[in-house]
Amino acid sequence: MEELLKFAPRPTGAGEMFQMLRDGQPRTRADLAAVTGQARSTIAARIDLLMSAGLIAPAGEASSTGGRPPATFAFNPSAKIVLAVDLGATHAHLAVTDLGSTILAELEAAIAISDGPDAVLAWVMTVADDLIAGIGRTRADLVSVGVGLPGPVEHSTGRPINPPIMPAWDDVDVPAVLSRHFDAAVLVDNDVNIMALGEHRTAWPAVSDLLFVKVATGIGAGIISDGQLRRGARGAAGDIGHIATPAPSQVPCRCGNLGCLEAVASGQAIAQNLREAGLDADGSADVVALVRSGDLTASHAVRQAGRDIGSVLAGCVSLLNPSMIVIGGVVADAGEHLLAGIREIVYQRSLPLATQDLRIVSSRTHGRAGVLGASAMAIDHVLSPAAIDALIV
Amino acid sequence: MEELLKFAPRPTGAGEMFQMLRDGQPRTRADLAAVTGQARSTIAARIDLLMSAGLIAPAGEASSTGGRPPATFAFNPSAKIVLAVDLGATHAHLAVTDLGSTILAELEAAIAISDGPDAVLAWVMTVADDLIAGIGRTRADLVSVGVGLPGPVEHSTGRPINPPIMPAWDDVDVPAVLSRHFDAAVLVDNDVNIMALGEHRTAWPAVSDLLFVKVATGIGAGIISDGQLRRGARGAAGDIGHIATPAPSQVPCRCGNLGCLEAVASGQAIAQNLREAGLDADGSADVVALVRSGDLTASHAVRQAGRDIGSVLAGCVSLLNPSMIVIGGVVADAGEHLLAGIREIVYQRSLPLATQDLRIVSSRTHGRAGVLGASAMAIDHVLSPAAIDALIV
Repeated sequence: MEELLKFAPRPTGAGEMFQMLRDGQPRTRADLAAVTGQARSTIAARIDLLMSAGLIAPAGEASSTGGRPPATFAFNPSAKIVLAVDLGATHAHLAVTDLGSTILAELEAAIAISDGPDAVLAWVMTVADDLIAGIGRTRADLVSVGVGLPGPVEHSTGRPINPPIMPAWDDVDVPAVLSRHFDAAVLVDNDVNIMALGEHRTAWPAVSDLLFVKVATGIGAGIISDGQLRRGARGAAGDIGHIATPAPSQVPCRCGNLGCLEAVASGQAIAQNLREAGLDADGSADVVALVRSGDLTASHAVRQAGRDIGSVLAGCVSLLNPSMIVIGGVVADAGEHLLAGIREIVYQRSLPLATQDLRIVSSRTHGRAGVLGASAMAIDHVLSPAAIDALIV
Repeated sequence: MEELLKFAPRPTGAGEMFQMLRDGQPRTRADLAAVTGQARSTIAARIDLLMSAGLIAPAGEASSTGGRPPATFAFNPSAKIVLAVDLGATHAHLAVTDLGSTILAELEAAIAISDGPDAVLAWVMTVADDLIAGIGRTRADLVSVGVGLPGPVEHSTGRPINPPIMPAWDDVDVPAVLSRHFDAAVLVDNDVNIMALGEHRTAWPAVSDLLFVKVATGIGAGIISDGQLRRGARGAAGDIGHIATPAPSQVPCRCGNLGCLEAVASGQAIAQNLREAGLDADGSADVVALVRSGDLTASHAVRQAGRDIGSVLAGCVSLLNPSMIVIGGVVADAGEHLLAGIREIVYQRSLPLATQDLRIVSSRTHGRAGVLGASAMAIDHVLSPAAIDALIV
């Protein structure tokens, strides 16, 4: 009902027809008429509108059984560009992509999110302008911007809500700041949510129930359910870092509780355990380096962290019944030890019906889950039926 | 994209227009033309189709500012009836409702689900025929049947999957059996899922992220996320009864693990604790009776069960970020003790962002959540745009 009202009145129906072409397959006017049940003349008019907006382009001729072969049309992803921004506590990843989320230019850099929104967003604008110019495009080609931030975000307004590691960003109108510079729609979400979206769209588009888990300095999750990202009532869904581990762990957490998953099994927590064992480990990256160098103490610590994460994920599996859990984040780079620990406990602790078709795998997006998700979020916004109709009337 | 293809081709558009009228408000042709952006002639044709199918009826005249006052039309929920069947382990609740989920006749009875599908479904058919005849309707008026079963169900096929307490029902084609008798569409789901749907639609339709928790002989949950019931990959979502409680509980569970929520805090588990304390408690109903009689041992046991349930729900709140948890099931009838225990731990253990707008309340559907949800599920199926279009072409 709401969906219906949101998209009505439909000035042309071209936006809705365009959704069918987003898969990139070339189609004839007759194909589109057959699927939509609309008259050929209606289809022809919509194609003309989408062509003049540059969103579709001729894609050659279909094979013919006699007579003049019919022309085909396909989505033209290079028509416009979007900016994808993945900001972490100490690390930023920016990418310019086309409307098919193909990365045209990208840059990674060390930042400090605690420098605050003025400094960090000014830096984002400068770097983004350079990236856009570097591929011979201009800001006029940019239709939207997707941003991931390392804290809770009210997605509908794009404002961070009491973000623990970036208090200076609390309630800042991030879309207003960026859209003033870029003159484009700006969508903001939590960093783990955009990673879940990026992993889902890029690597596992056919998996409709997927849980993405980031294991890095902190621990968080993003939920794909019935094919869509689910953010919860306040955008805080997936905040599994402060679920209590069932083990008799009494490690104090920065949140004030005891035994939170993050206090027990994050990259930070593993590094601290290794320091107490006399090893030189400052953070997640050092943990990964130690495991890769063959250090057994580090391998065992990562496997135990996997078991602790598994004890919490077993409950998530019972509650959500996903068919896939994807493990990402820096600590996942330590290899099979983390996954082995997670699998050991999840398969032991969850009911057979929930685990018999469950796969637990590593991220397949090679560190790009965040920017790919930010790009997908930005593209979805401008290529929705309503947005297309508004664009071309 | 999938949605789009599923509903296309649209023979008349009447099914889509009908969704606007499901709220029961009378509307004029001009109202509908304004909202849909369609021509008056198109609207008039769709109204004629829906009128002849009996789905809408004249609803008097709108007020006029001069000239002949325009006619209004509204949803006619009494056009057809649906059958709602809520089957538990030892209890059945059947209802006949109209297309607005208003209960026209109902019946509750003791059954044994373990008698198997042949005996139980034969009984359902006999009782349903009596209920339908009793209100002066016939099976020809019945358009669909919704069924809840106390075990995991593959919703797309309506077949139970390895249901622990009803092994004789495993993989039985419940829709085939019932649709042969009723000549109507049959939808089947897990009993807690239909309770969540019934509670959501009836009592909290505006709450888009809601967790319904049933505390009875067993413990289970149903998830409403972004306004829809979420069933997970295999229909097993919400199976929280076997999540481990964080307390150092080593109570063995029938599933083979230790410290499962159900083994610690279900009506069965509370009754056993009370028996060990020398009280006469055979099951959930006795627990409730003892609490209501003012027995302090029973009150304390129920409050402790609430804390144990709260320890698991705290994790569910972190993961899903609902804005409401509704507690139902027989044990919820024990009053505030259960809720007090749940609230104590959830508000202590979850992060402030997830709990600041969270309400934890008792069921408002007076034991009818199951049949109301089964009715809603059955109605949604026959009143979808595609179903309406198929009906009236």
